[in-house]
Amino acid sequence: MAARSNLQQAVPMTFGFKTARLLATFQRHKQRLSEILPRLLVLEFGGAVGTLATLADTGLAMEVQKGVAEELGLQIPDIAWHTERDRIAEVGAFFAMVTATCAKFAMDVKLLMQTEVGEVSEPFYPHRGSSSTMPQKRNPVSSVYITAMSSTVRQLSASLFEAMVEDHERSTGPWEIEWVVLPQICTLSHATLVHTRDLIRGLEVHPDAMRRNLDITRGAIVSEAVMMKLGAVIGRQKAHDLIYDECRKLGDGSDKHLVDLLTENLEIQAAGISRSKLEEICDPVNYLGLSEEMVKRVLELTESNR
Amino acid sequence: MAARSNLQQAVPMTFGFKTARLLATFQRHKQRLSEILPRLLVLEFGGAVGTLATLADTGLAMEVQKGVAEELGLQIPDIAWHTERDRIAEVGAFFAMVTATCAKFAMDVKLLMQTEVGEVSEPFYPHRGSSSTMPQKRNPVSSVYITAMSSTVRQLSASLFEAMVEDHERSTGPWEIEWVVLPQICTLSHATLVHTRDLIRGLEVHPDAMRRNLDITRGAIVSEAVMMKLGAVIGRQKAHDLIYDECRKLGDGSDKHLVDLLTENLEIQAAGISRSKLEEICDPVNYLGLSEEMVKRVLELTESNR
Amino acid sequence: MAARSNLQQAVPMTFGFKTARLLATFQRHKQRLSEILPRLLVLEFGGAVGTLATLADTGLAMEVQKGVAEELGLQIPDIAWHTERDRIAEVGAFFAMVTATCAKFAMDVKLLMQTEVGEVSEPFYPHRGSSSTMPQKRNPVSSVYITAMSSTVRQLSASLFEAMVEDHERSTGPWEIEWVVLPQICTLSHATLVHTRDLIRGLEVHPDAMRRNLDITRGAIVSEAVMMKLGAVIGRQKAHDLIYDECRKLGDGSDKHLVDLLTENLEIQAAGISRSKLEEICDPVNYLGLSEEMVKRVLELTESNR
Amino acid sequence: MAARSNLQQAVPMTFGFKTARLLATFQRHKQRLSEILPRLLVLEFGGAVGTLATLADTGLAMEVQKGVAEELGLQIPDIAWHTERDRIAEVGAFFAMVTATCAKFAMDVKLLMQTEVGEVSEPFYPHRGSSSTMPQKRNPVSSVYITAMSSTVRQLSASLFEAMVEDHERSTGPWEIEWVVLPQICTLSHATLVHTRDLIRGLEVHPDAMRRNLDITRGAIVSEAVMMKLGAVIGRQKAHDLIYDECRKLGDGSDKHLVDLLTENLEIQAAGISRSKLEEICDPVNYLGLSEEMVKRVLELTESNR
Repeated sequence: MAARSNLQQAVPMTFGFKTARLLATFQRHKQRLSEILPRLLVLEFGGAVGTLATLADTGLAMEVQKGVAEELGLQIPDIAWHTERDRIAEVGAFFAMVTATCAKFAMDVKLLMQTEVGEVSEPFYPHRGSSSTMPQKRNPVSSVYITAMSSTVRQLSASLFEAMVEDHERSTGPWEIEWVVLPQICTLSHATLVHTRDLIRGLEVHPDAMRRNLDITRGAIVSEAVMMKLGAVIGRQKAHDLIYDECRKLGDGSDKHLVDLLTENLEIQAAGISRSKLEEICDPVNYLGLSEEMVKRVLELTESNR
Repeated sequence: MAARSNLQQAVPMTFGFKTARLLATFQRHKQRLSEILPRLLVLEFGGAVGTLATLADTGLAMEVQKGVAEELGLQIPDIAWHTERDRIAEVGAFFAMVTATCAKFAMDVKLLMQTEVGEVSEPFYPHRGSSSTMPQKRNPVSSVYITAMSSTVRQLSASLFEAMVEDHERSTGPWEIEWVVLPQICTLSHATLVHTRDLIRGLEVHPDAMRRNLDITRGAIVSEAVMMKLGAVIGRQKAHDLIYDECRKLGDGSDKHLVDLLTENLEIQAAGISRSKLEEICDPVNYLGLSEEMVKRVLELTESNR
Repeated sequence: MAARSNLQQAVPMTFGFKTARLLATFQRHKQRLSEILPRLLVLEFGGAVGTLATLADTGLAMEVQKGVAEELGLQIPDIAWHTERDRIAEVGAFFAMVTATCAKFAMDVKLLMQTEVGEVSEPFYPHRGSSSTMPQKRNPVSSVYITAMSSTVRQLSASLFEAMVEDHERSTGPWEIEWVVLPQICTLSHATLVHTRDLIRGLEVHPDAMRRNLDITRGAIVSEAVMMKLGAVIGRQKAHDLIYDECRKLGDGSDKHLVDLLTENLEIQAAGISRSKLEEICDPVNYLGLSEEMVKRVLELTESNR
Repeated sequence: MAARSNLQQAVPMTFGFKTARLLATFQRHKQRLSEILPRLLVLEFGGAVGTLATLADTGLAMEVQKGVAEELGLQIPDIAWHTERDRIAEVGAFFAMVTATCAKFAMDVKLLMQTEVGEVSEPFYPHRGSSSTMPQKRNPVSSVYITAMSSTVRQLSASLFEAMVEDHERSTGPWEIEWVVLPQICTLSHATLVHTRDLIRGLEVHPDAMRRNLDITRGAIVSEAVMMKLGAVIGRQKAHDLIYDECRKLGDGSDKHLVDLLTENLEIQAAGISRSKLEEICDPVNYLGLSEEMVKRVLELTESNR
């Protein structure tokens, strides 16, 4: 399929290369989660201002704290953290990043589902994403919700940074920000992940459309490939100039394919490069770089993370 | 000194208990940094869309990538991450949290520096934080800047979450958000840390004022302590009601101290509790809970983290 | 051209309808500016805390204030507003909205410039928006910058809301947020407007591509039109069901156009609707609704606002 | 009472001067609301993409639109605004500003309610804002909620700026941001206003404490006043240096009041300024500047706005 840079077709790649990047990102999120959890699952139990003063006389304060922690499956804190809320803010930031990753994928799905592109479709459910008066439409419903929810999560998670600026030993307002936003961050993040999971599971991929779109520039998408490969024969600078000239003709209303223009080119003829060699050079399938190797690396990494 | 909850004096604690919480938070930030760095210091080198296509034919693409990474002291990526920007967003979130921790401390310094509180002062530099027409003023200059800069950092770091929602293989706008905000996040975070370091190093602490403020409620600040300790003698519920009544008198324009009221109280007299015992119970120094133990824990943890 | 809903071609419209909406939005921004300016251009001159105390004894305080205001071309404030910063926050919100309008237009330009759509191009400047190894590319450079800058402006403008939460008569940090963010908001907004102006002035519009894209659904884009117009002849429900069935065939790998399928349809034949009538019904040009009238309204409004 | 700059007592002012600034701000918000409403209360009714295409053939499209608008009490739009959402974003920004004004007032209340300041109290309701083990506490409950809610509103309102960046004629995600955040913005803003109204109505003001706090700097708070007034007699520079020296003595553990130090000062004795004159100069009540005049202006403005 076409890799796109600045929403322009750039060079060919595989759909697997796109999704492996998503998979690799989720591996990083998984690692983050494993780092965050021990910091998060920590008891806060210290009385009015965290000094355990009401229990101190009993001589059992630390033991009580330990027992409560065990009962709840939480770690014992080094010291009170009622007004040091980095543990909570960190969770918000984590969800902001996880949902932004979902939104990046949803962005690609939305763009690939465009009428003019049509390379993937969201899973079809009856009466979902269609229009009563426009039967041709199939809307990217999950992508829409993922987009909107992740946008809200990241703004709310910035509130948790502000909630860190607490006063003294029990704060006067900043703490209560958590009460308003944390439930929403969690709910919206959960819904975003559920939509993303369903989107990935049911995604319909259209290889024919991908192949067809690779051809709509009539060879321009492999101009970099041709430049590199011709350069090895006729010299890099010469190849660069030649390709630039020929590519300009592609946009001039001509119906010809780059391979035709190259075949007709006198310099290339002089260099003795055959039509079949040119066809090979211009085949997008032969310019996927190391996509496959990188996908394999990601799969191995994922396997080893299970 | 007085621990404060909802900006009200709550119970006594030590200044060390306050600063140990700051220290413990920075220990967590240190740990975060050690987790983030290996994810951040990763090469991105893959050509137009990350497939290393221009080098593939040489058969040396991976070797070149490896060599570049070694030269720059960076890790080799599993796969291209040009449009998977969680590594960058994570740095922004980290700085948002670190500077918010600074701002929480600055908030406490500002509040403790108030004319009516006066328990600490920012370090004094000639012609800084003073006023040409109000010689009595000593402004919390560093705290002011820390507050303003950390507020900006956290908003900008939310921009980095948005920058994660990139399209396809090289994005059309979201990436460039990083160009605008990342230098500022770094610069402002650096300045915030420098100000915080100087503030901590030069902070003037006024134990006399702390002690004086402990007394301005004429004993109310130890009401919880008295309730707990009397409760052990005369029963908890009885102690609760008694203290509530006596504390109400403290606010009624009387000049008496809680210890005086308790000495005059017939029930307490009947319980045979002496004036000197009451003075001991009412001494804030005897109601610090486990502040000291927790501070020690934090110091040990810090030592072991060096 | 195709109007798009959920990034799917929906029904036909004109390019003028799209840009008139932009123009109408800028008319509203113009109106907002005229409302904001008198609130913004107000003197703040009141001494340490706004009471004009240092001048009070002279008996000339108000006169001095008036003179300063006149000198600077500013209004006289009713009362000090050093810690009531709604006037400044309002400006930030205004710029956030103005730049978001620019970003909405840039979003459309980016999408219309996609290789697969190609309906507009950003103005061409030599060596701008092109790639040294991919000569076919023409990047939406201005749209990229507009997107990134407007995103930053709106986060920074939220900082100005926070800066409103000032303490007492001269605040301790919140005010200084303005010092950091206001210059940036202004600079980035200015650059966004300059890029948008140049983008609009130099935008290349490709009516051929617009027309071509209207045809890629082979008539599906006018399904609503056909439903409405057939409904008038054969009944609305019957028309709805018929169109739904025929449109489904369009996606089934057939190369036929909706007008062909309708011509072959027995019910339509029975209703005596001719091929030429069907061609008229299926011509997107005949289903533009009141686009033109609304564009005229906007132009008249704009004219009257000059 | 003491006006405070950088949380330091600066010069005297009146409590009315503080609240008149709040009142003046709400006057501006009232004006904003009157400007925003006509832009907001506008019909959006245009079919799939806003062209009124389904109704165009009837020749009654505009009439239908007009009828719907009348029925709903809304204005007729110049053109569709389904993807031009400045009207909605403007409402969010308005609520962000209104609630930030409430939060500024709540900030002052919180600070004035501190144990060490005690100049105002939130209205007392049984079992609200008190503590079961700390009977002396009276928490600023409304101020706490106002703080937390306004912080959330301003982050959510920034989401509405992002929601403006909509694609084409019906957007794919940005619009749905409104669905998530607008109800919350409205609900939280309403609750913030209710709390603020109740807080203002029931606020307890303690003039004795205000007067007492004016004296805790033993005259330093009037140093500016003294400098100005002495300057008129002995020359400004001389007065400045003299006051600086005397004020430094105030902080040196001495119990003396500025008026005592001035009485003992030889230069002042030489200038023939009597003790009673010095007492007048040092009385904070005589250094309120034009507070009263400005309060009157605000009251008149408010009256004329009714």
